Amino acid sequence: MRISIVRKAHFNAAHRLYVDSWTKEKNDEVFGLCASSNYHGHNYDIEVKVTGDIDPETGMLMNLKDLKDLIKAQIEDRFDHRNLNVDVDEFKDLNPSAENVCIVIHQILREHIDLKYDLHIRLYETPRNFVEYPAV
Amino acid sequence: MRISIVRKAHFNAAHRLYVDSWTKEKNDEVFGLCASSNYHGHNYDIEVKVTGDIDPETGMLMNLKDLKDLIKAQIEDRFDHRNLNVDVDEFKDLNPSAENVCIVIHQILREHIDLKYDLHIRLYETPRNFVEYPAV
Amino acid sequence: MRISIVRKAHFNAAHRLYVDSWTKEKNDEVFGLCASSNYHGHNYDIEVKVTGDIDPETGMLMNLKDLKDLIKAQIEDRFDHRNLNVDVDEFKDLNPSAENVCIVIHQILREHIDLKYDLHIRLYETPRNFVEYPAV
Amino acid sequence: MRISIVRKAHFNAAHRLYVDSWTKEKNDEVFGLCASSNYHGHNYDIEVKVTGDIDPETGMLMNLKDLKDLIKAQIEDRFDHRNLNVDVDEFKDLNPSAENVCIVIHQILREHIDLKYDLHIRLYETPRNFVEYPAV
Amino acid sequence: MRISIVRKAHFNAAHRLYVDSWTKEKNDEVFGLCASSNYHGHNYDIEVKVTGDIDPETGMLMNLKDLKDLIKAQIEDRFDHRNLNVDVDEFKDLNPSAENVCIVIHQILREHIDLKYDLHIRLYETPRNFVEYPAV
Amino acid sequence: MRISIVRKAHFNAAHRLYVDSWTKEKNDEVFGLCASSNYHGHNYDIEVKVTGDIDPETGMLMNLKDLKDLIKAQIEDRFDHRNLNVDVDEFKDLNPSAENVCIVIHQILREHIDLKYDLHIRLYETPRNFVEYPAV
Repeated sequence: MRISIVRKAHFNAAHRLYVDSWTKEKNDEVFGLCASSNYHGHNYDIEVKVTGDIDPETGMLMNLKDLKDLIKAQIEDRFDHRNLNVDVDEFKDLNPSAENVCIVIHQILREHIDLKYDLHIRLYETPRNFVEYPAV
Repeated sequence: MRISIVRKAHFNAAHRLYVDSWTKEKNDEVFGLCASSNYHGHNYDIEVKVTGDIDPETGMLMNLKDLKDLIKAQIEDRFDHRNLNVDVDEFKDLNPSAENVCIVIHQILREHIDLKYDLHIRLYETPRNFVEYPAV
Repeated sequence: MRISIVRKAHFNAAHRLYVDSWTKEKNDEVFGLCASSNYHGHNYDIEVKVTGDIDPETGMLMNLKDLKDLIKAQIEDRFDHRNLNVDVDEFKDLNPSAENVCIVIHQILREHIDLKYDLHIRLYETPRNFVEYPAV
Repeated sequence: MRISIVRKAHFNAAHRLYVDSWTKEKNDEVFGLCASSNYHGHNYDIEVKVTGDIDPETGMLMNLKDLKDLIKAQIEDRFDHRNLNVDVDEFKDLNPSAENVCIVIHQILREHIDLKYDLHIRLYETPRNFVEYPAV
Repeated sequence: MRISIVRKAHFNAAHRLYVDSWTKEKNDEVFGLCASSNYHGHNYDIEVKVTGDIDPETGMLMNLKDLKDLIKAQIEDRFDHRNLNVDVDEFKDLNPSAENVCIVIHQILREHIDLKYDLHIRLYETPRNFVEYPAV
Repeated sequence: MRISIVRKAHFNAAHRLYVDSWTKEKNDEVFGLCASSNYHGHNYDIEVKVTGDIDPETGMLMNLKDLKDLIKAQIEDRFDHRNLNVDVDEFKDLNPSAENVCIVIHQILREHIDLKYDLHIRLYETPRNFVEYPAV
């Protein structure tokens, strides 16, 4: 009886796309406005999907409140109202593209969720574009 | 030419999370406010996904109106404006967690949809949490 | 410089429409399925609009965090995961129709918001029907 | 490091469901109001999902702006504010059901996206029904 | 105790913007792609707002089911899966712009709703543009 | 025949709430995380409402494409992918609160829209809080 549960969360952050080892010209050429020097920002929405076997006694996969609290402690409290490039250690040397933000969120949460569960992250950078990791 | 079609529907129901064989204290500890004695409720949204081979003559997988009518007869007419714990037979001895409601909907519809089609249910308990069965 | 700010919130509750002084038959005739004996429920969404003069120093009408905390303390903590008919004093003798729930929320919040501000409540019972009080 | 990125787009088009080799009576019987002689229409929403390996230097799967421009040139500019049955060559002899529109969009875009990437299309005909191709 | 209730509904229709007394060139110049000869279409969403005094006995403004049935009979059954220019009498000599469609819906419903109530229509032509009549 | 038309648009920007004449401590106390030194950001959504008399010949209030182009030139091109505090002149000495961003957008557009029309701006900072100017 494998089932998936999904919990949504959100954080508001500033970022810019920038590869330090490139010239400013190359950054502007590849990333366009997303490379603007003084940052821009997004209301990021995340969907955390956990998959595994249902507990026959409770009828739940895992306690959704625990998942909500975990996302708050590990993601929202660290990313919300922050500048991803400057304030979040994981992006000190990593371009905070939607893809990398999604993978980093997966890495952080993966350490706190029992390995008997599969974990999948969807990250909306805007309502018009989002990424998913790992690919199904 | 395997393709999926999805039809959305919804019903408004009351429920509470409760395991009869546990004490009230244990129910409160595990389910928190969701165990409140007098029930709470949700606007449940469901997405019914049917997957199979397209009919080359009509260009359709199956008639969407038939699927809409099936969901109304089997799910909406039985679950809408009901108390899941009290009024719906399937939950007489089964905790109506989002996971179990999703699985029960799958079981009911599975009996009425040709086995040449795969069937997948997504159930939103709120806009912020949903479940999917079977897991992909 | 009169401006309006709006904060959204939500609570999940059970209710039924029922007028105690009527017969069961009349309740069923007027309210239909909404009068079902064992309750049904909704994910209620509320939009609390406060209107007044902007503070020229802060550039804010009022602190949105204060408004968020007020809605949580006065509405969410009292209505969420409750049965409106049974658990909420205001509906002991008042039919919890969407209209009455909206008016009660307005009455509760009105006592905690400075009278120099206008207050307007929109209450969604479902994504397809909502009420507004006071009427504009 | 396989990841998926999704870009949303939209177009507004007229269509009717009709199989030329059938009688009018059979078309009406199978397709109902969707066969109305003078067409009806939809705000179609599409989600174009591209899956592959992340570029470790840019931290991107592919440039989202390139994907956005491709969808505009190949889909929006050809389908938007058109009558699918009459104005779009692909549907001259093909019933523009949601399933077929989805498959045609996949065929068109597939020719312009490097084969090292997987491509998946979700097409919303209305907010209440959508199709996905290829099936997962 | 004046309050407003709002009911949402929707219909899918084809239309084109065209003024018969103008040349084709002038129509193309003013309306652009919206004047395309073979029509395009939309998923129109409507919000019907009724305002008046609450009935103290029922706690309702009017029966929402009656309003829902009225919108279905007078608007959905006449507009849904139709070509507004060709199939709907009101637009035989009237350009079916979003503005005119909104005003026509108001005129039709106004005749069936007691004059003690105010009536206000919001019409979404797409999720990105809508009109309201009468202006507040 | 006064009617309103509304066009939605959006921009992604960084900002922080900060009053230069205050100490850092007072800014932190009043604005909390919104005062974070390195900025955060939002996907801002705007709804531009124009109200006036319908043109009886075209059946339109004004050409929606002109309004769309105006919003793009005056708001999106200046605010999108920018840091409001640093890159946008209007906020050099003005705290970019949601209220002030809304008023500035109103001031900019007001200069480009014929005074025979009323103008009203709704600005979403997040899906959960928005402001409106002028107050209705």
